[in-house]
Amino acid sequence: MNTTVSITTQGQGLYEITSQVEAFVEECGVSDGLCTVFIQHTSASVIIQENADPSAKRDLEQWLNRLVKENDPHFTHTAEGPDDMPSHIKAALTATSIAIPIVQGALALGTWQGIYVWEHRRSSHRRNVVVHVGE
Amino acid sequence: MNTTVSITTQGQGLYEITSQVEAFVEECGVSDGLCTVFIQHTSASVIIQENADPSAKRDLEQWLNRLVKENDPHFTHTAEGPDDMPSHIKAALTATSIAIPIVQGALALGTWQGIYVWEHRRSSHRRNVVVHVGE
Amino acid sequence: MNTTVSITTQGQGLYEITSQVEAFVEECGVSDGLCTVFIQHTSASVIIQENADPSAKRDLEQWLNRLVKENDPHFTHTAEGPDDMPSHIKAALTATSIAIPIVQGALALGTWQGIYVWEHRRSSHRRNVVVHVGE
Repeated sequence: MNTTVSITTQGQGLYEITSQVEAFVEECGVSDGLCTVFIQHTSASVIIQENADPSAKRDLEQWLNRLVKENDPHFTHTAEGPDDMPSHIKAALTATSIAIPIVQGALALGTWQGIYVWEHRRSSHRRNVVVHVGE
Repeated sequence: MNTTVSITTQGQGLYEITSQVEAFVEECGVSDGLCTVFIQHTSASVIIQENADPSAKRDLEQWLNRLVKENDPHFTHTAEGPDDMPSHIKAALTATSIAIPIVQGALALGTWQGIYVWEHRRSSHRRNVVVHVGE
Repeated sequence: MNTTVSITTQGQGLYEITSQVEAFVEECGVSDGLCTVFIQHTSASVIIQENADPSAKRDLEQWLNRLVKENDPHFTHTAEGPDDMPSHIKAALTATSIAIPIVQGALALGTWQGIYVWEHRRSSHRRNVVVHVGE
């Protein structure tokens, strides 16, 4: 079974989709299975991170911005804006898909884990995450 | 089918769990399937690396420690110790879940591949990896 | 169901395998499922990237070469050549497996997404990717 979770991002940052994914898992009624989230873009990622403290997500974002700098003089892929090539690199360093076991009908997330879309572009984008549930 | 492999880490490093995962795959008796390992933490990772030469794992660990430095003056998430925020960043750069095909009843690992928990914190932690086997 | 896609690389770079994976998915005849690609090596990766503009892949490759430098004086794992330890690090920072949902009989890739083997070694290598299709 699959569905698509779509969100509209408002610039760089982590956007939580845990509740949408959990709702679909519940709807599927699978007791022991696997849930996969897959993002259909190459300038945004999916990530599991701490959902407790916003400062951790902000530090993560800013650290990655210092690692992958805009306007790198080596870049040749610049036609789509200064944040496009860094976004592809960030996507390569993070995850396009994550698989989470389903145990006793629920996602087996750790206590502090949330599922996020990580937007790497500066402007607003419509992002689609395909969610698959199997046994 | 799923199980949880739990280990107690003793500081940063790679801890092999290949044999525990293999034992569960064998127990499941699936001939053609998929085995997923998922770590329930945001300051440790799962990774597949070379299992032959310990120097490769040590160099990998130390390289990542030079990339993601402790006591970065930009960090604001510091309440849980100097190694906590670097651990979240390292987890984001590496993997939370890995899926390995099962072929003819065995994990389709390459000759030199082993499955590891990668502990990013300095102190001892109990780490849980949920292992799912499906068809 | 599973198969192995084998390619011979000719030095560093991204080698597209989308059509081989798509052909296997079609052959399997699964309408709603999950396709997993898993690379059996620790010095090469699998990656989903933009398939439109070759400059993006070239910039990505060169950026990673600047991040993970050969001949780092800290490396001790040097017996297999100057590009071996950097290759293990690059593999750790990117993906060993990627799972892609199958929707209505086809891979649910985004418009610009292609599936690639990312070779990190300088010389030619035979690389095996195990492809699993399940429901």
